[in-house]
Amino acid sequence: MNVTVGRRTRHYRTVAFDRHKNAVQLIEQRLLPHHFQILATRDFRETARAIQDMIVRGAGAIGATAAFGLAQGARAFRGSALEKFSRHIERVYQTLKIARPTAVDPVNAMNEVRHAMSVGETVVEQQALALAAAEQFADNNVKHCQAIGRCGAPLIRDGMRILTHCNAGWLAFVDVGTATAPLYAAQAQAKRLHVFCDETRPRSQGAALTAWELAQQGISHDVIADNAAGHLMQRGEIDLVIVGSDRILGRNGEVVNKIGTYTKAVLAERHHVPFYVAIPFSTIDWKLSSGRDIPIEEREQSEVLGAWGLVANPKSRLRDQKSSRRVYVRVANPTSRARNPGFDVTPPELITGVITPAGIFKPGELWSHRGKLGYPAFS
Amino acid sequence: MNVTVGRRTRHYRTVAFDRHKNAVQLIEQRLLPHHFQILATRDFRETARAIQDMIVRGAGAIGATAAFGLAQGARAFRGSALEKFSRHIERVYQTLKIARPTAVDPVNAMNEVRHAMSVGETVVEQQALALAAAEQFADNNVKHCQAIGRCGAPLIRDGMRILTHCNAGWLAFVDVGTATAPLYAAQAQAKRLHVFCDETRPRSQGAALTAWELAQQGISHDVIADNAAGHLMQRGEIDLVIVGSDRILGRNGEVVNKIGTYTKAVLAERHHVPFYVAIPFSTIDWKLSSGRDIPIEEREQSEVLGAWGLVANPKSRLRDQKSSRRVYVRVANPTSRARNPGFDVTPPELITGVITPAGIFKPGELWSHRGKLGYPAFS
Repeated sequence: MNVTVGRRTRHYRTVAFDRHKNAVQLIEQRLLPHHFQILATRDFRETARAIQDMIVRGAGAIGATAAFGLAQGARAFRGSALEKFSRHIERVYQTLKIARPTAVDPVNAMNEVRHAMSVGETVVEQQALALAAAEQFADNNVKHCQAIGRCGAPLIRDGMRILTHCNAGWLAFVDVGTATAPLYAAQAQAKRLHVFCDETRPRSQGAALTAWELAQQGISHDVIADNAAGHLMQRGEIDLVIVGSDRILGRNGEVVNKIGTYTKAVLAERHHVPFYVAIPFSTIDWKLSSGRDIPIEEREQSEVLGAWGLVANPKSRLRDQKSSRRVYVRVANPTSRARNPGFDVTPPELITGVITPAGIFKPGELWSHRGKLGYPAFS
Repeated sequence: MNVTVGRRTRHYRTVAFDRHKNAVQLIEQRLLPHHFQILATRDFRETARAIQDMIVRGAGAIGATAAFGLAQGARAFRGSALEKFSRHIERVYQTLKIARPTAVDPVNAMNEVRHAMSVGETVVEQQALALAAAEQFADNNVKHCQAIGRCGAPLIRDGMRILTHCNAGWLAFVDVGTATAPLYAAQAQAKRLHVFCDETRPRSQGAALTAWELAQQGISHDVIADNAAGHLMQRGEIDLVIVGSDRILGRNGEVVNKIGTYTKAVLAERHHVPFYVAIPFSTIDWKLSSGRDIPIEEREQSEVLGAWGLVANPKSRLRDQKSSRRVYVRVANPTSRARNPGFDVTPPELITGVITPAGIFKPGELWSHRGKLGYPAFS
């Protein structure tokens, strides 16, 4: 999507590849929203470190990063011995895989690249096929998000006020995003819209990332405390909710997403506000059959007990802020502990529809439409 | 309640009066939870400033502070001319009143003191009556909170896990608090309990103040993000909710309280978790007949766009933190704006019961029990 730095507006992808420098180009997401910087990794180890250190985050984005990292590693190989090359590729693969051991997207993406490479008969051919496959993976990611946008845009009527939670925007993918895709598509159709971004404590991805994205795209929006959405719905100020998902169960339609998603779904049902979940095919888990089987990760207590931000004057708008050094401040009582579940599970009966690249489906109907929805998953 | 500083544990009230120094003693709440300090105001102007600058906050606490401030001002008068004294008292009254112009508690408290003074025939008599009335006001506040504790404690069974929102603890009153009163009473009955404190963004009173109070009283607790309560209820980890209130409508039982209260009530209903509101009589508004007539204050955007805290190492527990200088950090995108409604309205059908000093009532039954509940309000 577009990013304006100074007076210059340019299109960027979250993840891209520089053939000449054999470098993966990433938006340094840890500096956002206060500072925009593109970082180029020089080799696959640096690319793995970028995944590990959260320079790049979000399912689709780390998938594409790993795919490019594998191609980058392949292209760095000198020589023509296929067996040696193959051992090298295995090292690259493992290095990128352990950078984010619980994520499934890097593994799926790299499997796709490796599969494409395998038909090459020489090292040079395999190197070329690796890069082509990684680029294909990234392009497909973008196309899927654009298709989500096309399918979701008709839900947005002129003048609507839309709530979103966390960040399922282009920063989490290669471009366009999932929950944001219908917003950008509706904007392109000249519909007026206003977005409420849940700040999404404890990591504040809504306040920091989604708000930054929407601001760059010129979409009218307000950040709200996670506590405020219920009140706004009560006063009739929210017309639609669109969120992303970390995992949706293809067999029963349960949605795993950032902590707080379930609460918004409960509120939306009470106020008859349509609640949609936007996903690419890769988010669908076709194996599990109950959300109860999903272990909910308990994250660092410090996330709840404090906040990361830029030291600032609360009265200023920070437009001219030069520094980008974020600090951690402790907000809570220093002797108290915290519980910090990272995700929650929203049952299908609270979900109006699932927006996919292949259309909008009821969550309970994913299984019967599995042929259109990428089942069985590539593995 | 008890506060431990170093190795010494002592009982403190939030607001007290020193007869010898003619000073109002206040806990400097802006330094909590990182630093405990008692501040003594030397004259009524300083007392008014303490109210204005939020050194003391919470309905009951600012009521008692204003009552003591009026007595303090009365006692500082030199001379015996009643008419001059009366004009002086009017100045003191107005100075304390405008310190927090929208609050009703200081006005009610000072009216009570002024009413008691009026029977005095000399300046000296009126000065003595003013102090006696202020002390009576503070003592009554404590007694009411203790009575809430007695009435609410039977709701808490051994081993229960209780959710609370914001701070309706002893820091908001003179002692004991309202939502916290049943907790302290149950603790005194040797019941085991665990409290989840909603951090209560954007001002984080739950994380900062309620957690501090509970820690000082040795009550087991965890701070949680406001997003987490729904998930915990879903997994059966919350047995009871108790919150305070800024205003409850005596005619229909609607509850105005900190933003996010309504959301917790909706979740509690869905999960069949009892939801109680604890209040002193002074919180009941006998005039208004619809929550829609209550203007919801929009507070500073900066509260939502950032956070106040102590610069710290996220890994440390801060037990040995010496500094108490809080800073503001900007968390959100610097060019984004925020909506910040301060309160919301919870309808009576979501409230299991209202815990008052005179017993527990259904919210819809307050009006028919108004004789026991302090109607008509003193004015």
